[in-house]
Amino acid sequence: MIYVIGIGPGGIKYFTAEAVEAIHDCEFIAGYEKYIKLVQKYFPDKKFMSYSMRQELERCKDVLNIALDQKINIGLISGGDPDIYGMASPILELAKNFKELEIKIIPGLTAANTAAAILGAPLSNDFAVISLSDLLTSWDVIEKRIKAACEGDFVICFYNPGSNTRRENFKRACEIMLIHKNKNTPAGIVKNISREGQEFKITTLDEIKNYEPKMNETIIIGNSFSYIHDDKFITPRGYKI
Amino acid sequence: MIYVIGIGPGGIKYFTAEAVEAIHDCEFIAGYEKYIKLVQKYFPDKKFMSYSMRQELERCKDVLNIALDQKINIGLISGGDPDIYGMASPILELAKNFKELEIKIIPGLTAANTAAAILGAPLSNDFAVISLSDLLTSWDVIEKRIKAACEGDFVICFYNPGSNTRRENFKRACEIMLIHKNKNTPAGIVKNISREGQEFKITTLDEIKNYEPKMNETIIIGNSFSYIHDDKFITPRGYKI
Repeated sequence: MIYVIGIGPGGIKYFTAEAVEAIHDCEFIAGYEKYIKLVQKYFPDKKFMSYSMRQELERCKDVLNIALDQKINIGLISGGDPDIYGMASPILELAKNFKELEIKIIPGLTAANTAAAILGAPLSNDFAVISLSDLLTSWDVIEKRIKAACEGDFVICFYNPGSNTRRENFKRACEIMLIHKNKNTPAGIVKNISREGQEFKITTLDEIKNYEPKMNETIIIGNSFSYIHDDKFITPRGYKI
Repeated sequence: MIYVIGIGPGGIKYFTAEAVEAIHDCEFIAGYEKYIKLVQKYFPDKKFMSYSMRQELERCKDVLNIALDQKINIGLISGGDPDIYGMASPILELAKNFKELEIKIIPGLTAANTAAAILGAPLSNDFAVISLSDLLTSWDVIEKRIKAACEGDFVICFYNPGSNTRRENFKRACEIMLIHKNKNTPAGIVKNISREGQEFKITTLDEIKNYEPKMNETIIIGNSFSYIHDDKFITPRGYKI
């Protein structure tokens, strides 16, 4: 059995009981070095395989081959939720040539869940989740989605809003949003969720447009009903309060 | 302190360590009767207050008043994630008149996380989350969002796709999607996640259009790259496999 284990944003408090149980059930645990270091701390008796960033396909292939050869339970760690920009899709795509292997996806808290909890209630109506990284999706498609999400008056939750080599995407996203959304629309930034240096800021679309987001940040922009009250970013569900 | 505690879809295995800790830290736990029954099973020593469906505002007001009067820790249970069609928004909206109270949102797995894990990797690119209940959002707005989500080629995850009194909304949603999305677009239904009677079905948009969804179901419709392979619903992340 291969478990693709969502561990949430990083802290052990965000692990589900199912994720803990799956880790216990594995002989080997593979994953990105930063997550492996975290899991190792709490499960020191397991065997681990650490990988650098961007070796996602290599990780998946190794896990599939070892599970097939050694017939043991292996865990593939995925930060956040494996299904949301995580390891579920690449391993299931590669698994087509490994028909006899069973793969179980263990869901985890994704940044949308945890960033929203820190900001208040920003996602409490229909929302769109968009990654601003154009490594795996073309920028044309990303722009089309930002525009469509604005036209639908969705709250928008941005993953991968920026990096050292990718500074323009968020700025361009704000320019598109400012065509459709009011400049006072609430905007929230959450950094390093559940890790050292966790912080958040609640501001407006107009203020955030000059911001240069880095890795490990999640940015949420409200819909036309969202508002800021006492350091909380609130999107009404629609109750008559 | 008021904790708004996301407990995920229902089974204890989906509770995070943080949710368990918060429940331990409370004297009173309030919530919808179905969730209270579940929590009571695992934390029999607590005091509980059960509410019927649709008494969301009453629950919030009671919790705020008791926390203010008695100065104790109270937990308000929210199925799934409090931020995603849950209790975070109504309680923060009502809390404006209770400035001295501290409210902490504890995130939980929402149906998008857990339904996706059961179906495979349907959400593994940008996606939109839309509730088809027109109790709190007007149907015009919902239709506009379905159309916009199609124009952005988002994967769409539908919450509250139907009920005994609301049979036409999902049919109408499919009609709109069939204008924009290929009729062979993968579609997945998940029922009763983590509860008795859990089941799932993977089919196509064309097949699902005559389906009458009930409560406790989550329906995911793919983007133009999604495909079905060996009973898995996969949306590619974009890796060159």
